Amino acid sequence: MRLATLKSETPDGRLAVIAPGGEAFAWAPVATLQQALENWTEVAPQLAQITSFPEALEPEQLCAPLPRAWQWLDGSAFPSHGDLMERLLDVQPLRTGLPYMYQGVSDRFYGPHDDVRFNDEALGIDFEGEFGVIVDHVPMGTTAAEAMDHIKLIVQINDWSLRMLAGQEMKTGFGWVQAKPHCSMAPFAVTPDELGDQWRNGRICVDLLIDWNGRRFGAANGEPMSYGLHELVAHAARTRDLVAGSIIGSGTVSNANYREVGSSCIAEHRAIETLDQGKPQTEFMRFGDRVRMEAKTADGRAPFGAIEQKVVEA
Amino acid sequence: MRLATLKSETPDGRLAVIAPGGEAFAWAPVATLQQALENWTEVAPQLAQITSFPEALEPEQLCAPLPRAWQWLDGSAFPSHGDLMERLLDVQPLRTGLPYMYQGVSDRFYGPHDDVRFNDEALGIDFEGEFGVIVDHVPMGTTAAEAMDHIKLIVQINDWSLRMLAGQEMKTGFGWVQAKPHCSMAPFAVTPDELGDQWRNGRICVDLLIDWNGRRFGAANGEPMSYGLHELVAHAARTRDLVAGSIIGSGTVSNANYREVGSSCIAEHRAIETLDQGKPQTEFMRFGDRVRMEAKTADGRAPFGAIEQKVVEA
Repeated sequence: MRLATLKSETPDGRLAVIAPGGEAFAWAPVATLQQALENWTEVAPQLAQITSFPEALEPEQLCAPLPRAWQWLDGSAFPSHGDLMERLLDVQPLRTGLPYMYQGVSDRFYGPHDDVRFNDEALGIDFEGEFGVIVDHVPMGTTAAEAMDHIKLIVQINDWSLRMLAGQEMKTGFGWVQAKPHCSMAPFAVTPDELGDQWRNGRICVDLLIDWNGRRFGAANGEPMSYGLHELVAHAARTRDLVAGSIIGSGTVSNANYREVGSSCIAEHRAIETLDQGKPQTEFMRFGDRVRMEAKTADGRAPFGAIEQKVVEA
Repeated sequence: MRLATLKSETPDGRLAVIAPGGEAFAWAPVATLQQALENWTEVAPQLAQITSFPEALEPEQLCAPLPRAWQWLDGSAFPSHGDLMERLLDVQPLRTGLPYMYQGVSDRFYGPHDDVRFNDEALGIDFEGEFGVIVDHVPMGTTAAEAMDHIKLIVQINDWSLRMLAGQEMKTGFGWVQAKPHCSMAPFAVTPDELGDQWRNGRICVDLLIDWNGRRFGAANGEPMSYGLHELVAHAARTRDLVAGSIIGSGTVSNANYREVGSSCIAEHRAIETLDQGKPQTEFMRFGDRVRMEAKTADGRAPFGAIEQKVVEA
């Protein structure tokens, strides 16, 4: 089952169930995805029963599937990304044996075709391709094994980052605020079964294809996470209940063979350039730049649809 | 004007305007404080016109004035607190010349008399007395001077902390997730004019009286912040719009003469003990412990009312 949210007069938009081909939809029997997640046991079977999709889908109607959330907690679970970023930023985060995670801004997620507003090109505008899961209510103290059942939907995210601010905020120990403005989401939130055996062990084992201004920049696979998303959910819930509709992120998708598959953010690519050539060669994004992100399964499907956005001056 | 939210069948409760004496209220013409903040220019004058308070206020009816918020960004603007915590945690956060700030969990704030649930007494349960401001919509790039006008309400907060987790999370650079579960709020959100000249330069210049199990623990004044709350709002809004109803916190209230006035959290007191006696003497909270927090003006008023809570096992 694939769900989308279409623009309406409210910030939460209106929930739609998407036809298998992705070209049509039916309105859901509940107004918003947040409402569905708050009553998932009851609502999900109603959504799954829908087999007639009378409405044509216009891409510009799309919001993020969850246009705002009460909580967005982003991990950093791809070790090759962490290693490269530590070298670039000259930081040595404490190895706690636990996942890394920060809390990000969640009052708005950009839709997949919205222009993305920044007020200063000099801040090092960067994309970060990643995956996330949306949970129903997760009680405090839920284990990783139990957390698996709370993962109701999977989404594809661009965690926009401002690199000139990220290093210094990390060095305060307080985490990122200015360096992490609002994120974007791909069109469709999908139930785990949509990924078949490419959802395994809490990993989203598909390739994340990233094109920057029409040129392929990365095609890393989502599998090699140090912690599965169920473990990240359990980490988040260790000392708090997670309200239904909380989103937990994987961190930037990255593979150890980054020289072959490329990267899911510019900063990582700059770190590789620094290793190879002594300093970064690639500049960050400029106003007018475009980025496209589309996850592809082994059999060529794009379950989440594509993010296609332009960076603009606020 | 003082506003409160009373428990109802929804998580957002129902908005009330409080009588000058604090013992009675009138229902507001809008349902929730969030709605009021989204239309503050229109709604605030309607609230201010109310002069008849027909309902008796029962303390156990009280939610947090804003029971959940789309965003909670907490600063750390009292230098004597920062200095002591750095010694205790053995951390040296980068001095960026900018305020320190992390994003905290905001999907729920405990009401002033709710029991506070933790699942492990060994995690170092601690209170943190502080102040916060609630803003209307603040556009990205708003200056500190402009931010002053966006501060619509002032609140008193207990930012519950788990100290055994806080040091290691800070050392990851990602900020606090597990160490910062849900916060509590005192009964009343007040407009700045309620504080008279004790709201000045973005500082809440009142004493925050803290009693732990009936014994006075702290009486620090809110004035000596390195940055005013308007500057913290501008910091938060540098690269993002702040949605109406965002809450920005001062960080733990602390004064340089902490040996005289005491502390607003146990950790700070333990840092002083470490300086004086080589190691901490005071243990953290136990299940069944109580904490009371009440800010007092120079003329003896308690504009926010009091937080009076018990720590319980989840």
